[in-house]
Amino acid sequence: MTLGVADLARARRFYADGFGWKPVFEMPDIIFFQMNGLVLGLWLKASLEGDMQATAASGTGAFALAHNVARQEDVQPTLDRLAQFGGRITRPGDAPPHGGFRGYITDPDGHPWEIAWNPAWPISPEGYVKFAAP
Amino acid sequence: MTLGVADLARARRFYADGFGWKPVFEMPDIIFFQMNGLVLGLWLKASLEGDMQATAASGTGAFALAHNVARQEDVQPTLDRLAQFGGRITRPGDAPPHGGFRGYITDPDGHPWEIAWNPAWPISPEGYVKFAAP
Repeated sequence: MTLGVADLARARRFYADGFGWKPVFEMPDIIFFQMNGLVLGLWLKASLEGDMQATAASGTGAFALAHNVARQEDVQPTLDRLAQFGGRITRPGDAPPHGGFRGYITDPDGHPWEIAWNPAWPISPEGYVKFAAP
Repeated sequence: MTLGVADLARARRFYADGFGWKPVFEMPDIIFFQMNGLVLGLWLKASLEGDMQATAASGTGAFALAHNVARQEDVQPTLDRLAQFGGRITRPGDAPPHGGFRGYITDPDGHPWEIAWNPAWPISPEGYVKFAAP
């Protein structure tokens, strides 16, 4: 789950100091928190929009959910399947500069989902995704 | 995590048939899926807005994240603490008709968080939230 933010230091204060969560990874444009079974990312909104190749709605609209799959070759078929059930592919699967493989699809109400193969982040047999440094 | 949707049957087709996830609870205005450590809800956008007492942005803005706390008396202090770190309380803690106790706060970028005490949903020692029928 990734939230687009305008000011990373300001967002860090809310999540790290307010909630008291400890970041597992920090870069000038992104911060990750290991949550229970998933990873929460705070990413500069412009970077998230660049990755989604879509403009996020203002305010609360700057977010993307992600569904991680086990193999690179699962990404495009998952996007294609979801498109048959009312989704709209906004970015077909391709390789981002930070590694892995991903595409984006919006659900029928416009909520964006990234379908991602991230070989750096292990998925447990139960499906829990864990952050690991690249 | 709750996504506001305009048409529940249409959203169900995308999530239950597209992703292949099996709902654990269905009512005319809401569907829950048990995820890994958290619960995903699809809720009619008007109902979500009524609960948040805020108008969701159009399109991708209709969502709310939730942080479940262990005790009813933790809700308001958590809201107050987050307000000291850049959050804005949009609904002080009170009791919703479906039980429990909750308030809403937006992070500095406007992303809405529900701070919830839900006695029906157990939280494991590790913090994993599990759906249970009311």
